[in-house]
Amino acid sequence: MIEVLRLSHRLKRDVRVSTHCALSSRALGASKIYYSGQHDSSYEDSVNKIVSNWGGDFTIEYVKNPIELIKAKKRENYFVVHLTCYGLELNKEITKIRRNKKILVVVGSEKVPPEIYHLADINLSVTNQPHSEIAALSLFLHEYFQGKEMNLKFKNAKIIVKPAKIGKNVIKNL
Amino acid sequence: MIEVLRLSHRLKRDVRVSTHCALSSRALGASKIYYSGQHDSSYEDSVNKIVSNWGGDFTIEYVKNPIELIKAKKRENYFVVHLTCYGLELNKEITKIRRNKKILVVVGSEKVPPEIYHLADINLSVTNQPHSEIAALSLFLHEYFQGKEMNLKFKNAKIIVKPAKIGKNVIKNL
Repeated sequence: MIEVLRLSHRLKRDVRVSTHCALSSRALGASKIYYSGQHDSSYEDSVNKIVSNWGGDFTIEYVKNPIELIKAKKRENYFVVHLTCYGLELNKEITKIRRNKKILVVVGSEKVPPEIYHLADINLSVTNQPHSEIAALSLFLHEYFQGKEMNLKFKNAKIIVKPAKIGKNVIKNL
Repeated sequence: MIEVLRLSHRLKRDVRVSTHCALSSRALGASKIYYSGQHDSSYEDSVNKIVSNWGGDFTIEYVKNPIELIKAKKRENYFVVHLTCYGLELNKEITKIRRNKKILVVVGSEKVPPEIYHLADINLSVTNQPHSEIAALSLFLHEYFQGKEMNLKFKNAKIIVKPAKIGKNVIKNL
């Protein structure tokens, strides 16, 4: 059970990056994304539309206070992983992290409040280079699930893609 | 030697997603990104600034005609991997792909011209779900380099981050 918290979403400016975060989370085995910052119905709609067409039960929920969410999840025994290029190294820590069955992965934006670093059970880096929260999140999920997430089946899918050498092999149950 | 081609960049609308593509490519071991679409000096500047501060010799180059670039790379014996959710599965194909030492990874935008599917040596999917070219690119590089890309050292770095349990441990050689 992996859930994701995307911090500090901003209307318009962040819609594509936040959507990539949500869709990567869904495709790679997370079950839910929370987001804080500005409430954005069009962001939620675009994620919900993908779920409705492509299946599964991934959900998106806005939270006004991300610190409170993290505290609540900790009380429910979630292990909180904060992804940051300043943290400990993924490859050294992943085996230990994998022992936890309920995880909240926190991904930031430009400025992450210091409190998040202290509340997290681990501050984890996916390389110590600046790159992308989408890349960091995807590599974390891939390492957590050890590649098994590549073969997920999504229930009640109206659109199913079959791997094809060239072109598009799409089954539509609309 | 992995190079990346980002198709159909659009001014303003794509700057963040294209920047994430470039920085993830750099952080995860690619040596160059080409981009087509609209020429964008501010995109190039932001990537070059990261390289100047964080080291290494990653470069960015605009190409007017991406089809011609792909054909030229093929003549130079690059193996061309087109990432698309419609393609063959990463986990089944990666061992074969890894035998190639020179690779051009092509990542699309909304609409990829059919010619790209035919020119590519392989159309490759990182899951058959809609998600993110940044995620697909990162997982491809991670699988190609088998995790070794996590420990890259970047020459001539003015900024070096050391993994820290909490907070930021940054060495600056400015």
